[in-house]
Amino acid sequence: MIGMLNCSGAAQLLKGWDTVLVVSHASPDGDTLGSAAALVRGLQALGKQVNFCCPDEVPEKYAYLFQGIVPEPAEQAHVVTVDVADCRLLGQLSDTLGSRTELSIDHHGTHVAFAPCQWVEPESAATTEMIFQLLQELGVSMDPAMADCIYTGLTTDTGCFRYGSVTPRTHRIAAEVIELGARAGEINRIMFESKSREQVEAERQVRESMRFYHDGKCAVIEVPQWLLQETGATESDLDGVAAMPRQIVGVIIGATLKEKENGEIKASLRTNAPADAAVLAGKFGGGGHKAAAGCSLRGCTMEEARERLMAACGAYLKEIGA
Amino acid sequence: MIGMLNCSGAAQLLKGWDTVLVVSHASPDGDTLGSAAALVRGLQALGKQVNFCCPDEVPEKYAYLFQGIVPEPAEQAHVVTVDVADCRLLGQLSDTLGSRTELSIDHHGTHVAFAPCQWVEPESAATTEMIFQLLQELGVSMDPAMADCIYTGLTTDTGCFRYGSVTPRTHRIAAEVIELGARAGEINRIMFESKSREQVEAERQVRESMRFYHDGKCAVIEVPQWLLQETGATESDLDGVAAMPRQIVGVIIGATLKEKENGEIKASLRTNAPADAAVLAGKFGGGGHKAAAGCSLRGCTMEEARERLMAACGAYLKEIGA
Repeated sequence: MIGMLNCSGAAQLLKGWDTVLVVSHASPDGDTLGSAAALVRGLQALGKQVNFCCPDEVPEKYAYLFQGIVPEPAEQAHVVTVDVADCRLLGQLSDTLGSRTELSIDHHGTHVAFAPCQWVEPESAATTEMIFQLLQELGVSMDPAMADCIYTGLTTDTGCFRYGSVTPRTHRIAAEVIELGARAGEINRIMFESKSREQVEAERQVRESMRFYHDGKCAVIEVPQWLLQETGATESDLDGVAAMPRQIVGVIIGATLKEKENGEIKASLRTNAPADAAVLAGKFGGGGHKAAAGCSLRGCTMEEARERLMAACGAYLKEIGA
Repeated sequence: MIGMLNCSGAAQLLKGWDTVLVVSHASPDGDTLGSAAALVRGLQALGKQVNFCCPDEVPEKYAYLFQGIVPEPAEQAHVVTVDVADCRLLGQLSDTLGSRTELSIDHHGTHVAFAPCQWVEPESAATTEMIFQLLQELGVSMDPAMADCIYTGLTTDTGCFRYGSVTPRTHRIAAEVIELGARAGEINRIMFESKSREQVEAERQVRESMRFYHDGKCAVIEVPQWLLQETGATESDLDGVAAMPRQIVGVIIGATLKEKENGEIKASLRTNAPADAAVLAGKFGGGGHKAAAGCSLRGCTMEEARERLMAACGAYLKEIGA
């Protein structure tokens, strides 16, 4: 079996493997981690030897996803990536695991093939939407812990069922996993409604950094390293603010610039129609979805990154006549 | 037919009426307006003469709910209230319509009976969840405009499917109305992701007003009239910030104090377990749900209102041992 698979093709492939290594993307979010944890649990329930790895540390708020999972040594394991749109998103593991990946399960429309077998479904709002079907196809009897994992991916990748990517199927799977025991209210509280005072202060400062460009059609906010150090907030504490610039009336392209520890500037782009965030991110070697995408700018200061990005935005807005 | 009805009882009652007046509560929100507009549309589709009224002006952002509805003179109409938990919430219409109400459809656990017939279902996350069932029971063929109305109530009353009140049924109805044409992504954009610059500035100032009491277990923010006048933001522009104090780690009771034009101070309370917002609001003659409730304080300044409320919070926290 090789090439583009569907759900049952992916299930057949997995059925044939006894040892599996499930891999998440770098800077992990709720969807890649929820997908990985659900798949690990499901495959272990089928009696397989399964291990998990992630290029970066798993943020504390996602620890519950992995609670009770005992990683099993899976040497020479078959490697499966979940929610990884591009080999480069394996971060520090891309050299060692990129070429070893046998199956890639992903929902990004911008997926760049890197595994011999891939199941890519851009109409899924989250990769856990695919994992839910996969576990059903594999005949796994879903327990509350798996239900929590599935729900976590659904809610985090859709801004809690807010985005246009949500389909009737997304809601129906949410209904099913809540019935199976997913603690929806509690998970949403952790993901969206729980902020430390440090986080509140950091968000306030990030909000103050907002600048407008191109007659208010672009808005950009900044998260420099010094701000994280000064407030004690972590980068994932500020995940929520990325959506903020786009929310302002008249803004077509909203950008959040984050300075990483290695000096690289990571840009998160959120757009309203007719702008396409993935196209814009592509101009800087990045990618993503129509409404949300990302890219990295290297060898420049925050200010230079902002000016380069805003210049590209100006040209792009002209290009699309917005 | 009299007393406590279920869905089919309410449907039977409505079937017997030719002219109906559907009434929303004062300071209308997406659920009372979505319920009313869906019911008006559904009953008109059945050939009835239907009119709508609301004690206060309908905010501009909800105008789409009523688009295309032609109100029909409905003199001597049978009066139905939707999402009205208490006769007093009919505001300036409570004297004229309170005693005329024949059927009250509501999902508040704190519902205070005021109509001879009532269908109250606290397990519904929104009143539109009940209206959806009712329209099905009435045999109404649901069009995209009705679907928009149902979805609006679901999403606004659950913080976009975020709260613990959401059940599998809530998600399943969301799935069905999206299939029927509800513009979920667009509605969520209007309700949650669209802010004027005035609103952003007003929110910033409201955030700055935050004070903590009782070892950080209570947090309170304030919306004085001068702030609305100075920023040009409207009161409904600030609906979103009410959730903010409760989101901070350690906060059990979060309060938003709004000064109304008549000088009355309206308190919105949001609580985390073990606190019950409805019990606390009840101490000031208000009511609501376990996690969200409201009350009014009269004849006092903002500062006095804050101190009275925080004193009551302190006593209540001791009472429940929190």
